[in-house]
Amino acid sequence: MEAMEVARAARRASVRLKAVDGQLRSEALGLVKEEVLAARAEILAANERDLHAAGGLAESMRARLDLQSKWGAMVQGIADVQALEDPVGRVTLARQLDKGLDLYRVSCPVGVLLVVFEARPEVLVNITALALKSGNAAILKGGKELQNTFVALQQAISRALARSYIPPGAIQLVGSRGGVSALLQQDKYIDLVIPRGSNALVRSVKENTKIPVLGHADGLCAVYLHADADMKMAQKILLDAKMGYPAACNAVETLLVHEDLTEAFSDLASTLVQHGIELRCDERLLVGPTVTAARPEDYDTEFLNLTLAIKRVASLEEAVEHINEHGSHHTDCIVTQDERVADAFMAGVDSAGVYWNCSTRFADGHRYGFGAEVGISTNKIHARGPVGLEGMMIYQYRLKGHGNTVGEYGSGKKSFVYKDIVL
Amino acid sequence: MEAMEVARAARRASVRLKAVDGQLRSEALGLVKEEVLAARAEILAANERDLHAAGGLAESMRARLDLQSKWGAMVQGIADVQALEDPVGRVTLARQLDKGLDLYRVSCPVGVLLVVFEARPEVLVNITALALKSGNAAILKGGKELQNTFVALQQAISRALARSYIPPGAIQLVGSRGGVSALLQQDKYIDLVIPRGSNALVRSVKENTKIPVLGHADGLCAVYLHADADMKMAQKILLDAKMGYPAACNAVETLLVHEDLTEAFSDLASTLVQHGIELRCDERLLVGPTVTAARPEDYDTEFLNLTLAIKRVASLEEAVEHINEHGSHHTDCIVTQDERVADAFMAGVDSAGVYWNCSTRFADGHRYGFGAEVGISTNKIHARGPVGLEGMMIYQYRLKGHGNTVGEYGSGKKSFVYKDIVL
Repeated sequence: MEAMEVARAARRASVRLKAVDGQLRSEALGLVKEEVLAARAEILAANERDLHAAGGLAESMRARLDLQSKWGAMVQGIADVQALEDPVGRVTLARQLDKGLDLYRVSCPVGVLLVVFEARPEVLVNITALALKSGNAAILKGGKELQNTFVALQQAISRALARSYIPPGAIQLVGSRGGVSALLQQDKYIDLVIPRGSNALVRSVKENTKIPVLGHADGLCAVYLHADADMKMAQKILLDAKMGYPAACNAVETLLVHEDLTEAFSDLASTLVQHGIELRCDERLLVGPTVTAARPEDYDTEFLNLTLAIKRVASLEEAVEHINEHGSHHTDCIVTQDERVADAFMAGVDSAGVYWNCSTRFADGHRYGFGAEVGISTNKIHARGPVGLEGMMIYQYRLKGHGNTVGEYGSGKKSFVYKDIVL
Repeated sequence: MEAMEVARAARRASVRLKAVDGQLRSEALGLVKEEVLAARAEILAANERDLHAAGGLAESMRARLDLQSKWGAMVQGIADVQALEDPVGRVTLARQLDKGLDLYRVSCPVGVLLVVFEARPEVLVNITALALKSGNAAILKGGKELQNTFVALQQAISRALARSYIPPGAIQLVGSRGGVSALLQQDKYIDLVIPRGSNALVRSVKENTKIPVLGHADGLCAVYLHADADMKMAQKILLDAKMGYPAACNAVETLLVHEDLTEAFSDLASTLVQHGIELRCDERLLVGPTVTAARPEDYDTEFLNLTLAIKRVASLEEAVEHINEHGSHHTDCIVTQDERVADAFMAGVDSAGVYWNCSTRFADGHRYGFGAEVGISTNKIHARGPVGLEGMMIYQYRLKGHGNTVGEYGSGKKSFVYKDIVL
């Protein structure tokens, strides 16, 4: 199917879906769960074919692609999203403008989402659940390594939609990267693109579309050790933030050290090196034989491995400035005993997450308790940080009158009263 | 000054401004008011020069450019914005993830705004007030007809900022259209563009930038008369929505008439024609000698004058479909006695404003009681409809811990507790 047809079908589905009752959307999720469970054997067989086709995989890659081990969690994920409160139709403002003229702001779905995601089998089901729950139509493109798995999952979802009140175009799967390029031109029909995956993918999506893009390319997170930092705590946080999952976007890439800690830093450096972390170190800090001198570009690099760039700063202000200039506005942390210093850091750093005395790796929708996330956003508008259902919503103003006209109001005429309506 | 320097100065100012206390931002607004009042003679003289340079103006254009008559309202506008609640630092989510690990979502300014606006003298002051109140830096470009007025106002604002804790780059005025083109390339430093003015301006801005754009090009609003519509009410609403200010974005351009009203429509049509409205009429409705037959493109046209395109529809569904396909997602109205029909219309129409039995011309930030607006948005993300202070805000997640690491959580380890924090 042509990109424009896919996009138009999604649009048509979305305007119908927008008006479908929450109960019916929730029931559709139940049907999705049912059909996925019923197709278990066929879906897992498709996943086996993908794993086989991918050939000799590294264990970590195999674990990522394998659905068998994640089956239970994936199915439970549908039920978890089903159990969330309906985000559609929430009244966030209710105001009487005048007697018999009432204004309401009511949450509603954004419309049509294009979600491009990595080769993880559970993500397709997860995003489908979030889209249906939020009343959005979604066009999905997953990593090609799992094409068979995704097709099998999509077929089960289609069977579920056919049994529900949800229009069939609400969830569509597209097969090729070329398809995505063409879809990125459909700004008339697609409201929001959510790319997940490599920096290169996100950048390429942003460069090639007029549709708003929600996501993040880089995750260049910093930890700043203030003069009074508890060095034991700093060590604990750094080891977690660097070693827990070095390729994650919320891993730490830059360490800023207050100059008063110059001496105390040497012990910390030794420990980090012992744990296999490669230090690219400011020459003004104690540079031993086990560390390399940092080059300027190291402070602008998302290493995604066990390399850590380290810089000495003279003050909180310099740390904040460095992070705002060199960071990626994802998640940044201060280690300090002083609440006022922490508050100044959190007020000054212009990032989606600003942390005090805890690991940057908490930046995650599940850890925040959002149930599920469609991605992590470093955008400055709409939704920032881990994005769950709320990021898939917008609102409408509904005004209910009795023949009211603007011409009746003005100087010497009627006035607005502006009274909150108690719901 | 080069566009990049302007943008960088705004960015630097914005990261400082982000941390400036609300009290100090409010005081700065007081100083702006003071300096504008002190420079009254000089500002009004500059406005006189602009009026003179513009030459023989139509009365409506002269009224738009003239500041003398709007002086009091403009100054009062600063005080009104000053009196609004501080939108920065509001906690919209507070959740204990675990003992000693607290998550807060806190409102903060978007950052750097580029606002391009029409030649209305009061708008510069209005947007300056909203930007300072919300902690955003703003780069302003106003219609060239008022260049002298804008420079005089900006000088007063600069004097106020110099006396305040607000960095001077927070409010900058740029002079030329060429300057705007170059600024639209500064997506590294500018977070949001708000263009106000002609469709052509908004379209050209959207075509030429990667920065998110908030606003609307078209305002193609429809009124739908359902089968049970009170025709007296319909007439009242239509006259207001069409004649109040035909060039406004919230004026009605398309009238949809349920087929059951085919006969009743002829009286309404006569009245509209008597009021000077030119009807482009569906041939299936009673076409008298005083109306023209509608061409298909009339249903896609924002006339901005006294022309009204009229179409007969067979059902509510057809009306909703027509509006979603041909409208501009700005504001659309149904006239009906039936609440369930109205609800179905409002749930089905995908527009920023969906109205029941009242004029589309209520779509306006002042009429909604928002105090002031930076524009009306037909975007599907971030902010929709009339945009006031809220649309200039985003949020940060602040996580406060005691050395907590992600590695401590997981199966067989600690669990998150997710308890709401009562503030």
